[in-house]
Amino acid sequence: MKTQASPRLVDLGEDEVVRELTRGLPVDGSVVAGAGDDCAVLEYGRTGYYQLFKTDCLVQGVHYTPDTPPKLVGRKALARALSDIAAMGGWPTQAVITLVLSPSYHMSYAKDIYEGLAEVAREFGVSLVGGETARPATSSGRTAIVSVSLLGLLEKSRCVLRSGGQEGDQVFVTGTLGGSIKGKHLQFQPRVWEGRWLSEHFKPSAMMDLSDGLAKDLPRLAKQSGLGFQLVYQRVPRSPGCELAQALNDGEDYELLFTVSPERAESLKASWSRIFPGLPLTHIGWLCPEDDSMASEFDELGGWDHFQKMPMAT
Amino acid sequence: MKTQASPRLVDLGEDEVVRELTRGLPVDGSVVAGAGDDCAVLEYGRTGYYQLFKTDCLVQGVHYTPDTPPKLVGRKALARALSDIAAMGGWPTQAVITLVLSPSYHMSYAKDIYEGLAEVAREFGVSLVGGETARPATSSGRTAIVSVSLLGLLEKSRCVLRSGGQEGDQVFVTGTLGGSIKGKHLQFQPRVWEGRWLSEHFKPSAMMDLSDGLAKDLPRLAKQSGLGFQLVYQRVPRSPGCELAQALNDGEDYELLFTVSPERAESLKASWSRIFPGLPLTHIGWLCPEDDSMASEFDELGGWDHFQKMPMAT
Repeated sequence: MKTQASPRLVDLGEDEVVRELTRGLPVDGSVVAGAGDDCAVLEYGRTGYYQLFKTDCLVQGVHYTPDTPPKLVGRKALARALSDIAAMGGWPTQAVITLVLSPSYHMSYAKDIYEGLAEVAREFGVSLVGGETARPATSSGRTAIVSVSLLGLLEKSRCVLRSGGQEGDQVFVTGTLGGSIKGKHLQFQPRVWEGRWLSEHFKPSAMMDLSDGLAKDLPRLAKQSGLGFQLVYQRVPRSPGCELAQALNDGEDYELLFTVSPERAESLKASWSRIFPGLPLTHIGWLCPEDDSMASEFDELGGWDHFQKMPMAT
Repeated sequence: MKTQASPRLVDLGEDEVVRELTRGLPVDGSVVAGAGDDCAVLEYGRTGYYQLFKTDCLVQGVHYTPDTPPKLVGRKALARALSDIAAMGGWPTQAVITLVLSPSYHMSYAKDIYEGLAEVAREFGVSLVGGETARPATSSGRTAIVSVSLLGLLEKSRCVLRSGGQEGDQVFVTGTLGGSIKGKHLQFQPRVWEGRWLSEHFKPSAMMDLSDGLAKDLPRLAKQSGLGFQLVYQRVPRSPGCELAQALNDGEDYELLFTVSPERAESLKASWSRIFPGLPLTHIGWLCPEDDSMASEFDELGGWDHFQKMPMAT
């Protein structure tokens, strides 16, 4: 009898790996939402509030280059986790940090990473309550990894999961998409205030932050709501100098992607432009039944399509 | 004018690095104890309770070898953090995991790590609520890192910090020390129940878990209490086959080190042997004024000394 070899991680997508690993994990009644959303949502002692819990990890050579100023590395490491708290409608409270650095790094490099962490922590009222360091194996070359775990809080009534989208809801995105690698990926503004405002005044039916690009993240959001989606390519807000494919695929936008019922959409747009005049809010599509037959073919004149037929970045 | 170059991490001790990095971090009124104890201690919504928050990181080639069965890697990763929760007198609640694995690993390796994590999570009632994966930089060889962040809870009245030791308190240690590398470092039992029992019945004045060896950890505990210590070498409980130097220096014992006032020590010893008959509890010394002049010279017949004159492992 032949046994099937386990596939290598390189042959699997990240979603597949995470899905496989987090299936059937132990959870108890304290867990409102576990692995699979932007943050875990936990019962909290304070009546009427949930606690949010998120971990994220920044790897040199993957998420930034050896040339990246270490202050910006620290900034990005915490800002990414903040973006996930924002995507639930919550506010951040405390974080712990683990730094894995080869011993050949200078102390000033590590301190600059912490300075970047502390700066963004102060900006968003986050307490940094723990800092571990570890040395990588000597065989692993020059390694630098910053792991951040972040707690947050959220009124139960304002909790927005990825899974709450309803058929016909309008899909919105903040800011502009694409070209983050030119600099925004290090200096983006996590949309914490925007997420708080949304969860208070126009509670989205579903929300997430855009980290892997609209082309990956919109299908995730729709799928977790048990739905499909229709996207108007022409409406996708592109960052200056970006083609559609970049806006769809580049990733690291750290903007909010969310859905709102059509009845509230007009009022949302009007209020948004008053409250956040500097930040575009764009209606880019709709949630629709998952059934493929509901998706029309891609139309060269511009129209609806599933991402399966989307122009891919080369 | 010459500027002084920042030292390399390799030239600094871990304590010094962490102290430098965590100095002046932003904290607010929600933080009872930040970086520097076994866990961060945070105000919690539920009246009468604190929340504990800890992050820890396991690196292949440092904390385990490439041959270590991955299930034991997962087990150890979570058990180390559990040991820190135990050292505060608390109980663990939820954890999130980040796995950094080279793409050449098989999926079965990652799944086995998670199986080990889930097994020890079930044993201690921990919910695993998030699992991130990241790929290391391609330049960093075959890398495997498991980062765990763990939450816990604790009655305010039972919170034990490292800093509460009083002059004259007796120093106790659970279990036996040394030789962990032969296997215990992968299969130790985090002393969660023992820590809970202690914090309820004989609340220690100070407590920590022994991860770096008594020779490093006892001075840390004493120093954080603003005191020195006296240690009776002959009393240090050695694991089978271990010399004194190993019991002092090997590290990774994951036993509890704590201090209790002399008035309560006799009663503690009697109760302990009834409740935990299989686990030794040993009175190994005292807390004393930090002033060096109070420490007697090392006595070949056995006596008191500061660790500065301790036999070091070679």
